[in-house]
Amino acid sequence: MRLAHFEVGADRPLFLIAGPCVIESAGLAEETAGRLKEITDALGIPFVYKSSFDKANRSSLGSFRGPGIERGLQILEAVRQRIGVAVLTDVHEDTPLDEVAAVVDVLQTPAFLCRQTNFIRAVAAQGKPVNLKKGQFLAPWDMKHVVDKARDTGNQQIMVCERGVSFGYNNLVSDMRALAVMRETGCPVVFDATHSVQLPGGQGTSSGGQREFVPVLARAAVAAGVSGLFMETHPDPDQALSDGPNAWPLERMQALLETLVELDGVVKRAGLIECAESPSS
Amino acid sequence: MRLAHFEVGADRPLFLIAGPCVIESAGLAEETAGRLKEITDALGIPFVYKSSFDKANRSSLGSFRGPGIERGLQILEAVRQRIGVAVLTDVHEDTPLDEVAAVVDVLQTPAFLCRQTNFIRAVAAQGKPVNLKKGQFLAPWDMKHVVDKARDTGNQQIMVCERGVSFGYNNLVSDMRALAVMRETGCPVVFDATHSVQLPGGQGTSSGGQREFVPVLARAAVAAGVSGLFMETHPDPDQALSDGPNAWPLERMQALLETLVELDGVVKRAGLIECAESPSS
Amino acid sequence: MRLAHFEVGADRPLFLIAGPCVIESAGLAEETAGRLKEITDALGIPFVYKSSFDKANRSSLGSFRGPGIERGLQILEAVRQRIGVAVLTDVHEDTPLDEVAAVVDVLQTPAFLCRQTNFIRAVAAQGKPVNLKKGQFLAPWDMKHVVDKARDTGNQQIMVCERGVSFGYNNLVSDMRALAVMRETGCPVVFDATHSVQLPGGQGTSSGGQREFVPVLARAAVAAGVSGLFMETHPDPDQALSDGPNAWPLERMQALLETLVELDGVVKRAGLIECAESPSS
Amino acid sequence: MRLAHFEVGADRPLFLIAGPCVIESAGLAEETAGRLKEITDALGIPFVYKSSFDKANRSSLGSFRGPGIERGLQILEAVRQRIGVAVLTDVHEDTPLDEVAAVVDVLQTPAFLCRQTNFIRAVAAQGKPVNLKKGQFLAPWDMKHVVDKARDTGNQQIMVCERGVSFGYNNLVSDMRALAVMRETGCPVVFDATHSVQLPGGQGTSSGGQREFVPVLARAAVAAGVSGLFMETHPDPDQALSDGPNAWPLERMQALLETLVELDGVVKRAGLIECAESPSS
Repeated sequence: MRLAHFEVGADRPLFLIAGPCVIESAGLAEETAGRLKEITDALGIPFVYKSSFDKANRSSLGSFRGPGIERGLQILEAVRQRIGVAVLTDVHEDTPLDEVAAVVDVLQTPAFLCRQTNFIRAVAAQGKPVNLKKGQFLAPWDMKHVVDKARDTGNQQIMVCERGVSFGYNNLVSDMRALAVMRETGCPVVFDATHSVQLPGGQGTSSGGQREFVPVLARAAVAAGVSGLFMETHPDPDQALSDGPNAWPLERMQALLETLVELDGVVKRAGLIECAESPSS
Repeated sequence: MRLAHFEVGADRPLFLIAGPCVIESAGLAEETAGRLKEITDALGIPFVYKSSFDKANRSSLGSFRGPGIERGLQILEAVRQRIGVAVLTDVHEDTPLDEVAAVVDVLQTPAFLCRQTNFIRAVAAQGKPVNLKKGQFLAPWDMKHVVDKARDTGNQQIMVCERGVSFGYNNLVSDMRALAVMRETGCPVVFDATHSVQLPGGQGTSSGGQREFVPVLARAAVAAGVSGLFMETHPDPDQALSDGPNAWPLERMQALLETLVELDGVVKRAGLIECAESPSS
Repeated sequence: MRLAHFEVGADRPLFLIAGPCVIESAGLAEETAGRLKEITDALGIPFVYKSSFDKANRSSLGSFRGPGIERGLQILEAVRQRIGVAVLTDVHEDTPLDEVAAVVDVLQTPAFLCRQTNFIRAVAAQGKPVNLKKGQFLAPWDMKHVVDKARDTGNQQIMVCERGVSFGYNNLVSDMRALAVMRETGCPVVFDATHSVQLPGGQGTSSGGQREFVPVLARAAVAAGVSGLFMETHPDPDQALSDGPNAWPLERMQALLETLVELDGVVKRAGLIECAESPSS
Repeated sequence: MRLAHFEVGADRPLFLIAGPCVIESAGLAEETAGRLKEITDALGIPFVYKSSFDKANRSSLGSFRGPGIERGLQILEAVRQRIGVAVLTDVHEDTPLDEVAAVVDVLQTPAFLCRQTNFIRAVAAQGKPVNLKKGQFLAPWDMKHVVDKARDTGNQQIMVCERGVSFGYNNLVSDMRALAVMRETGCPVVFDATHSVQLPGGQGTSSGGQREFVPVLARAAVAAGVSGLFMETHPDPDQALSDGPNAWPLERMQALLETLVELDGVVKRAGLIECAESPSS
């Protein structure tokens, strides 16, 4: 399918959705978008910048939620114009969707909301490409119904995204089989390599994270076979205002992406043997 | 705390929230409410009638969603007046909350939406008692934060409800420890004995259920120690328009409740030994 | 079925298997057995004393394993004779089974070994009643195969025991549905209320435990409907040489059992509604 | 470490342990070993042939268990001599270990037995390289204790193997983080790509499997970073006498391995970024 100004899909080169979890400031947004554009241009990776204007489902009440929709959209618009990248943001149960859709290139729906029929349909009805995150409570084959709800609006630019599934309390596991299962929807499959290493609620009043596993899961998912990768990054993750524990440091992004592009090339040149006809059949 | 016209709490007699999953018709609503009132009056069980006007998160697009808010509220209002019972209904991300709060005695928030800060606060701000369902993805100790978000609005009439936690794909498990953990919030703890036996998405385009385990889990939860019980019931579960596979038959409700009331009496007369001081300490 | 000198089963009064996890000394064994006999005699609970001569699967190498088979059997024999109680102990992959069977009244197989065909058959072939613990990795319906392997030896005195199922890492959950499912084997179903609150490996080099949940799970299981209950107890759990964190204090055993006997009475007088014919069918 | 006639480790080329689950006949053993030797020689993959003489933990009593130890060892010895490959087999709680160790190059311990201290020590004490399978119920960091028990015998040729972790009932999930966690033991880490797609007990009296996910998980694990891969294969999986549903067809092994070798090369040339020092620190 068409995503902003490039084609994405199971047999197209890996694309990247990346940026800081939340919009902290115009300066940080432009700095990170600029650096990510340089890196992805150099490596030939189609790139969409991601950042949130409002974190609507923080663990506890006192957490930083972002600049709000008005200021947030101004900053995303500026990133889009000045840096020349496509932008994605996530919307919530009470977001004025048309205001957001007027600015960004891609809309994203939160994992917790994947079963809210009206919400999913309202987002899809904006006519922009949508990245549907799979709920932490959902089996991968059940994403078919979420996709059906979205496509029923007439929007065919739908992506599905794995971000880990509940595994006991305060932990998620990334089931690589889910990536193969979700290919059956016909949608480009995206792996969210940073939320997958979250420990939800694992720090008492906020979610913890295991940054050191980001490259492990990212490599695994790319080799399993995906269309795109989602990663939150920050120049100084320990100072990030949201999801720092699971953000990948910006300065180490290039090295990681170099390996991922190579792995993606190996897998896509060879083709997915599990999708091929058996020689004897 | 005060719930409609009775006091509920860890040391008060078990109360019951029950009714058909979705409002199917005025006739069915009054029939079931009337019968449940008779049974609970006879057994001395404080009772709140439950039914939904809109199932906003059905597995797939083609499922029956209910009569809609206008007709649904009319029916609930009629049940309230004619049968003389308190009524509860669940609200969703796009429900006009004030319209619902003007009619019902208790509001309920869906499990999937337990982390949506604005939504939880908007519901609590209606000033009615609220039953907060715990997400299938949430650890029981993390309900504290959800309760904090609700109470921060000034509403202290907050209940918390266990309805099963994700256990692999298309299955839930009811962790009886969660009931004890959630007592720490200070809120009355409710156990949802019918959604806990759901097999989410387990029938392809809809969720399956294991009705035969409803009494097993209900007895277990009451003995573990709860303030209230939530059960969906229907005169003919196999013909129910929503959640039939996990509804308990109306005609068998009295027999089940008789045992549950006895168990509740045993536990509450004895007191919870895990909450008592050790004799040696 | 016959268990030592009493009948046990789904419709018989609750029986108890209890004692310190490991045999620490002859003195402790006789003290605990004596006290448990007094309590259970007073409450009319059929009782089997449990203690291990060797903990063969401790988390780490340095943990205390017990007095060994020779001294251990001497102590169990003495408890049996002097206190006048039936005794149970667990056997392992390299235990000389005939030596143990010559002394004890009941043999128990470890959860980890429930799929070892030769071992299960060798234990059952001793002709003593056997308590088969369900593996932490096993679905309750799969215990049927374990029971079949045991019964195939001709031994029909087989019990099945739930002790929690893997739930993420270093945690177990007790699925009360499993107790109902395992009734289908026709064997008396036992709930192990103390190992179920273990946090396996949760203390680095040993397993942690959540003693405060023992009464919660014990009450829940008895109300769900079981034939017997298994609980490890110790006069001073914090000083116990094995599984102290999940042992229930001996001095609080009577109070807990009083409630459990009452709950068991309620459930068994009423009968299990899920096993009864529906009035309409 | 030295494994048979080659060096294996985190920075050495991927090695392969493969063969039919159970020894079905001398003919099949030599045919499969010969073909696997050809393929691995051509691709430069260090290779160990695997097959079991006894399946000691089949789901149910009626399942085929293998040729037994005497005939099984004769066949493995013949494979070793005639085909010129190293051989591995798994041992059980009642196996005469010295007889097996006298024939094979590598011993393997079953996942269910990973916590049996005496057994693990007895196997390690044979002085042969040992592949320790991680239990389906064990957290990856707890394999350290299993390794310690094995190494305490003086044997330093210890490998650890991930084969999936319990995820609800009758399902396993492969947590790719576990591969990174187990590297901390210092042992070569092996991923078992065929048992990881088992559905334990999922076919009533036997375990099901999802062969189509073998390549997905194998690619993911190699890209996550492992020393070796374990895969069961068969010329005609649908006719295999054990574990056919999760065996990978022999005729498709070469194509799969070609991709895996390429992925392994990418990852090991680049180095594991999560193990490298951060440039700024």
